[in-house]
Amino acid sequence: MREFEFIEWVRAQAATSEAVEVGPGDDCAVLDVGGEKLLLTADQVLEGVHVSLTRHGPAAAGRKAAARGLSDIAAMAGLPVAMVATVAAGKGLTAEDARAIHDGLRSVGDAFDCPLVGGDLAAWSDAGGRLAVSVTVLGRAGGVGPVLRRGAAPGHALCVTGAFGGAWRGRRHLSFRPRVPEARTLAADFDVSAMIDVSDGLAVDLGRLADAGGVAAEVHADHVPIADDARDADDPLAAALFDGEDYELLFALPAGKADELIAAGPLAVPVARIGVVAAGSGLTLIRNGRREVLPARGWEHET
Amino acid sequence: MREFEFIEWVRAQAATSEAVEVGPGDDCAVLDVGGEKLLLTADQVLEGVHVSLTRHGPAAAGRKAAARGLSDIAAMAGLPVAMVATVAAGKGLTAEDARAIHDGLRSVGDAFDCPLVGGDLAAWSDAGGRLAVSVTVLGRAGGVGPVLRRGAAPGHALCVTGAFGGAWRGRRHLSFRPRVPEARTLAADFDVSAMIDVSDGLAVDLGRLADAGGVAAEVHADHVPIADDARDADDPLAAALFDGEDYELLFALPAGKADELIAAGPLAVPVARIGVVAAGSGLTLIRNGRREVLPARGWEHET
Repeated sequence: MREFEFIEWVRAQAATSEAVEVGPGDDCAVLDVGGEKLLLTADQVLEGVHVSLTRHGPAAAGRKAAARGLSDIAAMAGLPVAMVATVAAGKGLTAEDARAIHDGLRSVGDAFDCPLVGGDLAAWSDAGGRLAVSVTVLGRAGGVGPVLRRGAAPGHALCVTGAFGGAWRGRRHLSFRPRVPEARTLAADFDVSAMIDVSDGLAVDLGRLADAGGVAAEVHADHVPIADDARDADDPLAAALFDGEDYELLFALPAGKADELIAAGPLAVPVARIGVVAAGSGLTLIRNGRREVLPARGWEHET
Repeated sequence: MREFEFIEWVRAQAATSEAVEVGPGDDCAVLDVGGEKLLLTADQVLEGVHVSLTRHGPAAAGRKAAARGLSDIAAMAGLPVAMVATVAAGKGLTAEDARAIHDGLRSVGDAFDCPLVGGDLAAWSDAGGRLAVSVTVLGRAGGVGPVLRRGAAPGHALCVTGAFGGAWRGRRHLSFRPRVPEARTLAADFDVSAMIDVSDGLAVDLGRLADAGGVAAEVHADHVPIADDARDADDPLAAALFDGEDYELLFALPAGKADELIAAGPLAVPVARIGVVAAGSGLTLIRNGRREVLPARGWEHET
């Protein structure tokens, strides 16, 4: 079964309670507890899928797992509070490896005031079991947002932080810095109406943003920032649109606010205006003055 | 490396922040956010270690993962708020299996007003990868507790809910009901001073309770409630003390309060008074009027 289908199914089944403001289907759940809006997100890093122990080492697995969770908190413009992690360890994992995974988790958490406050370590019983690191990050709105995927309105500008494509080639998928402070600034000062972090690919995540808002989106090929890692790709634009694992922010905001944002340049990372939100549905790529359908595809797990 | 050593090491390394009231090393972390005390706990169920897909089925994996997390919330006398889950799926896992895992998570969550609000499903890339279900439960104190592992004082009675031993033989490790409402009553009305849920074994978890409080504990062999599942064991008492996966509550409280509790019988599950907290350290088993050392051992992962 495809991951998207499963998520759709889960969303349709979702139970709710008084505390749940936003359930499955956004970057984080939003929970109303004691007057504070809490954010909760779980993500995992699997050996051989998201990281290679032999090529990248155990610390990279911990680092990436924590950073993926923090990137989800950033996507809602949240403030991290704390994280917990479970580690399923293959037979060959040593004590030193376990410490390196922990150090990796910690190094990212500490940089964002998000301490690792608990978890579990268990070993697979057979030789085939491989490393799985699952991280849950708890965040809070802290008076800003939360910014959801839905909310983009026709006429709003579409912007991104950073550049796209070739994240695996350049190992950016291991070293990326979650855009936590950037997202706070965007939401607090620039009226961001919808936001997502680009994990599965710019096109597919733009498709999610558009679908969530019940709108269409148009992207100018010339305006898509291409990462240095993708310059040598056969098709650098396709790499930027479809590779995924960039962990940059994709967001919509009123056109005037986008002008202000680009002029002011308040973030530590470049911002590019890649297109516009339109009425309707679906994604359009404008290349050399011609309009073509942009397929909302990307890096996707099959099960 | 042994799990206990690793946890000790993690505890020694633990980062902290203003929000962290209790970090790694208890059943849940305790976080102070927006004036409410939040509880956060992560746990996992691995195929071949905690569950067998072929013998128990996929729904049992989901159910057990959720119930383990809720049992940790119960151990602090917390109220569940919501949970998130990650599923790492082996190649053979079907869409129907994934739905069954989700149904298993949901069936336990719904019974405790703890909706599943998000998560991630990913597939192992090679044939050797096996099912891992990781669940994080967010809870809150809601004006009661949180009851920690530390706090047992010499002279306090030691009590347990339910009965112990043979949880795998009778499949109680899959069907147990987390003691959430029972723990609320114990903490609110009976001055419980320390509490833990018995996951790794009565003796080892009693050792943790004693160590956390800087006290010793004495257990009367005749008073340990032995589960029906353990009656046919070679040594039923040893099964009750060391098997683990009972997911019952073990707690300390003032002797007078224990009298009240036993007399009133307010819980839906039986309570037994198995011993007493003493000054010093270590565990003692009193059997046929003779005192012997009770080793704090149980079911433990090796990595």
